Amino acid sequence: MNLTTKAKPQHAPMDQFKVHNNWLMVNGVSLERVKLRAGQTPFYAYDRSVISHKIAQLRQYMPQSLKLHYAMKANPMPAVVSFLNSQVDGIDVASGNELLVALNSGIAGHQISFAGPGKQSQELTMAIASSVTINVESFNELSNIARISDATGISAKVAVRVNPDFELKSSGMKMGGGPQQFGIDAEQVPKALLQIEALGLDYQGLHIFSGSQNLNQHAIMQTHRQIFELASRLQRSTNLELLTLNIGGGLGIPYFPGEMPLDIAPIGQALAELIDNLQAAHPNVEVAMELGRYIVGEAGIYVCEVVDIKESRGTRFAIVNGGLHHHLSASGNFGQVIRKNYPVAIGNKMISKKQSSDIAQNNTRLDQSVSQEKVSAEQLYPVQIVGPLCTPLDLLADKYELPAVEIGDLVVVYQSGAYGFTASPRDFLSHPQPVELLI
Amino acid sequence: MNLTTKAKPQHAPMDQFKVHNNWLMVNGVSLERVKLRAGQTPFYAYDRSVISHKIAQLRQYMPQSLKLHYAMKANPMPAVVSFLNSQVDGIDVASGNELLVALNSGIAGHQISFAGPGKQSQELTMAIASSVTINVESFNELSNIARISDATGISAKVAVRVNPDFELKSSGMKMGGGPQQFGIDAEQVPKALLQIEALGLDYQGLHIFSGSQNLNQHAIMQTHRQIFELASRLQRSTNLELLTLNIGGGLGIPYFPGEMPLDIAPIGQALAELIDNLQAAHPNVEVAMELGRYIVGEAGIYVCEVVDIKESRGTRFAIVNGGLHHHLSASGNFGQVIRKNYPVAIGNKMISKKQSSDIAQNNTRLDQSVSQEKVSAEQLYPVQIVGPLCTPLDLLADKYELPAVEIGDLVVVYQSGAYGFTASPRDFLSHPQPVELLI
Repeated sequence: MNLTTKAKPQHAPMDQFKVHNNWLMVNGVSLERVKLRAGQTPFYAYDRSVISHKIAQLRQYMPQSLKLHYAMKANPMPAVVSFLNSQVDGIDVASGNELLVALNSGIAGHQISFAGPGKQSQELTMAIASSVTINVESFNELSNIARISDATGISAKVAVRVNPDFELKSSGMKMGGGPQQFGIDAEQVPKALLQIEALGLDYQGLHIFSGSQNLNQHAIMQTHRQIFELASRLQRSTNLELLTLNIGGGLGIPYFPGEMPLDIAPIGQALAELIDNLQAAHPNVEVAMELGRYIVGEAGIYVCEVVDIKESRGTRFAIVNGGLHHHLSASGNFGQVIRKNYPVAIGNKMISKKQSSDIAQNNTRLDQSVSQEKVSAEQLYPVQIVGPLCTPLDLLADKYELPAVEIGDLVVVYQSGAYGFTASPRDFLSHPQPVELLI
Repeated sequence: MNLTTKAKPQHAPMDQFKVHNNWLMVNGVSLERVKLRAGQTPFYAYDRSVISHKIAQLRQYMPQSLKLHYAMKANPMPAVVSFLNSQVDGIDVASGNELLVALNSGIAGHQISFAGPGKQSQELTMAIASSVTINVESFNELSNIARISDATGISAKVAVRVNPDFELKSSGMKMGGGPQQFGIDAEQVPKALLQIEALGLDYQGLHIFSGSQNLNQHAIMQTHRQIFELASRLQRSTNLELLTLNIGGGLGIPYFPGEMPLDIAPIGQALAELIDNLQAAHPNVEVAMELGRYIVGEAGIYVCEVVDIKESRGTRFAIVNGGLHHHLSASGNFGQVIRKNYPVAIGNKMISKKQSSDIAQNNTRLDQSVSQEKVSAEQLYPVQIVGPLCTPLDLLADKYELPAVEIGDLVVVYQSGAYGFTASPRDFLSHPQPVELLI
């Protein structure tokens, strides 16, 4: 097999993690050491510095007036939520149990909002008792909230989740426009606002969310304009004061070959103007963006270990001790129509781009044997990285070009900080569970 | 909305469950009572009588000489495994933890076989210590088994899992032919048999498995012929005696509209002849079929409760307290390329086909008001059944025609006895877990 020449689309460089002595580093700790700290493979490791860097970038490019919320469904590990609660302005929860984790992390109830269809009475009671803002998804839910508020004597803070009359273009997942289980249709919101007033609920504002995992800055900016317009339009129908406008998230991260990181600077500039204009009409309004994947997705890696290598009819298989059951999305089986590889590396055989070019430049100055060794370490071979499950779906990397893989090597799946551990069928085939580390 | 006239393909009738007073019955217990026994919704309920009926059918149509194994990865609930262990001739496990459940159920180690790529040393040790037959998946595994056998002084029983040189046609999932992570390529098996002999391992035989979820009896019969031919051919290369031939499973069950139950009678007839012929050459051989889904799939239902109903732009949504996180396959997000509906019913609003036709026939004899009520109970309306997750992927039934759905109704998803509970990301969004009942 030859050195690869790649005309095909590449993964974006995963340069959020440093490399030292060919080992991947997680917040300054070599993966070799992280594995020992984990006590086992497989594990998920989340890098505090990468998370904080994402927050810092957001603070730099987004207007100061924008509140940043963490949508904890992306990664509800209590340590992650606790780490983030001092860095963000609020936490968005999607269930009663998430609410408990958020409150236990020390954040105040008034900094929490709760969205999701089909909220149960018990969950609504927990939210009302905690002074959490409930993003109302239906008229039945509104009545239920009023009933619980009456019964407990505790005022209920509500915002209306709006199913907009437009869609977020180029979105990985459409969650607005057309018929939806999410929110109240824009055209029915005036009626909902009347009911909120009549029921004497503590109105906070609007939650308008229309997509996720978007890598097209122009589509996001257009959606933001439409969200602000819709919010202004809906507020014209009511005397209730707009205190919060939650514009959702939608900022994507690159997962697949050919995808590039989003340029958030123009998004921030445009948002500054939109917020200024909104505040001119609604002086007390706070605008919040809720981000999950964008904050934690790139900070996490999933690491498993090669336990067997085999050749079958000309194809090389590296069998690892993790897979689909621990990381469903990376296996391509979580709602993806076409399976694509997540970015993957061998965490103990890293050669950074800089090192590679240094080697090339210094080639003539190095003695021949060293040069050979370095070059062979750079050589890439296509391999199938598969898990231990008895199903061909258990595929972590398909025809992936990597340095020669050996038993004991650590396979790293990048972009695994969001929708990994909790979004996977971890009991499938009763293999050992992965552990999670925040480093 | 009108009474539906359906030209489109129908789900096969789910007549494994009786109906009484419009309630679905699970092994003689009304779903109303099952819900009380569960203590909550959502829950999975598995029907002992349906499981035993499937075993009885297999015993009726399959040759007496065929051993029936239960592949417990389909449903590893300990109560299910214990219930089955006296009814089957063996249990197939896919991990060390499954092995523990199988042994705890009381079945003997020599009735257990263990397959799966990437078996770890610890798991191999557990299997060897339990006199379990290990289906060897690679040459490295073979060496590892020999090493552990030497170190512990315990003889290791091995069978070779063969990656055949043919494919099971019309199979839901291809697991043989071409390059595979499963088994040793047929052309390398003679070399593996030589090693087994040289290493002094306790050779049991061959495991040739090439697909799953097949509803085409002709394709299955053809594959069986090929499996027996391949086994005979491979045995010609060795002096080791063939004691077991595991022919895998592959018998499918109908999930989607237009799929019909498999006719297993001709499969059994053809197998009888194949086994006779094989035993003529290998007098001590036992042939085993390993079935998971086919034994338990139809015996299980997943039940969740409608917690909200809403109309959004002309579409009716019933929001339930379960969904994708409890039953990933039914949501269509587990490796399916095109989402199709599982068969679904309202468990408290059942009208059997017989009842419907009785009503039609007796219509003139009934007084008008009763007739009206019965007819309206029969009327069907399209509805979206969606779960509580904040993702449009959380869809249990798409444009499904059901009796008018109300809050409190019990949504039943049929064909949920296999690859449901354990094959789902149950921690996703931290909603309450479903419970499992064997009734």
